[in-house]
Amino acid sequence: MSEEGFIADQNGYLEAGIHIATKVKSPGMERFIYKVRDDGLYLLDLKTIDSRISIAAKMLSRYDPKDVIITASRVYAIAAAEKFAEIIKAKFIKGRVTPGIFTNPLREDFTEPKVIMISDSRNEKQAIKEASKIGIPIIALSDTDNSTKFIDMIIPANNRGRRSLAFIYFLLAREVLKNRGEIKSNEEFHYQVEDFEAKTEAKVQPAYNAPR
Amino acid sequence: MSEEGFIADQNGYLEAGIHIATKVKSPGMERFIYKVRDDGLYLLDLKTIDSRISIAAKMLSRYDPKDVIITASRVYAIAAAEKFAEIIKAKFIKGRVTPGIFTNPLREDFTEPKVIMISDSRNEKQAIKEASKIGIPIIALSDTDNSTKFIDMIIPANNRGRRSLAFIYFLLAREVLKNRGEIKSNEEFHYQVEDFEAKTEAKVQPAYNAPR
Repeated sequence: MSEEGFIADQNGYLEAGIHIATKVKSPGMERFIYKVRDDGLYLLDLKTIDSRISIAAKMLSRYDPKDVIITASRVYAIAAAEKFAEIIKAKFIKGRVTPGIFTNPLREDFTEPKVIMISDSRNEKQAIKEASKIGIPIIALSDTDNSTKFIDMIIPANNRGRRSLAFIYFLLAREVLKNRGEIKSNEEFHYQVEDFEAKTEAKVQPAYNAPR
Repeated sequence: MSEEGFIADQNGYLEAGIHIATKVKSPGMERFIYKVRDDGLYLLDLKTIDSRISIAAKMLSRYDPKDVIITASRVYAIAAAEKFAEIIKAKFIKGRVTPGIFTNPLREDFTEPKVIMISDSRNEKQAIKEASKIGIPIIALSDTDNSTKFIDMIIPANNRGRRSLAFIYFLLAREVLKNRGEIKSNEEFHYQVEDFEAKTEAKVQPAYNAPR
């Protein structure tokens, strides 16, 4: 059962570490910080995380799936975002997008999204740049150290941890299907958070503590 | 003619003072500031203003007009926002919304919007609070001194000046109609910026310089 107004159980969020951010604070992310932990890590406001996941899902569900692009670049994000894209039937782009992908109809991989969702603005700069060129809404998971310069809708969250990423995309998938009317309740959503988790460890640990 | 990638002529923006903000900088607005003028007023980045107006219009055009609410509280904002709502056939709420308006079906004024647009978060706190309760996207015109705490999509702009407000809502109206396919070009939009301007002076000048 989830608390009033929350789409998910708060313990689920806490266990997934969805609110545990970094030690670095970029302009635009300050407003989502709830407090600083003793070890210097910023903690994000859980209610806002929950609310933004819900609202982003509502937004995404208004688009034809073929017009939606999801991007991710690192192991944990890729596993989670790819599963999300598969379930909501959106397009998934792994790693760097190539310049012109949204603007040059002569390219083989040319596609014209109407909305894009970014897993980590630090790793997906080119996708953001290309999306900016065609003026579509950019939704992004943003940790406290992420640049939010070109992001239209921010989902503040730990976007480096395996469990956190899995949980975020699990919720987004479930909420999109509910908003589309493809399922009527959480019980009809036949996936587990584990389905969104990378099966291998990332070679490099998420650099929570390194200044970027 | 507008410059490449801009929906409006940059001189139009400059003349309307759309980029001239306040002397106060709230968390979350710093990222939109281009520079500080000699007199201490912050100037907003024009490209971002333009891009956000365009993207907000794209978003709004995806909703049934009856599900869209626009709010405004002060003379200049009311004139502009009311005209905008009239043209795109959205609902307009002037002044304070009453608690429960979106949540209590027994109320006479009960309505269930799916998206809300706020002219000034300082004056429309209650609308933001009510919209937060039902978890709908909140789009807001935000000056540098505005709180952005509950705002999902920020349109950074001077939201106190008569001409600035008129120009913003003029552009939003034109872009929404284009995105809906109701008009095919700017030339088919039979309104002037003046149609969005308040006919009377505000009694109290916009308090650009007062710390809030």
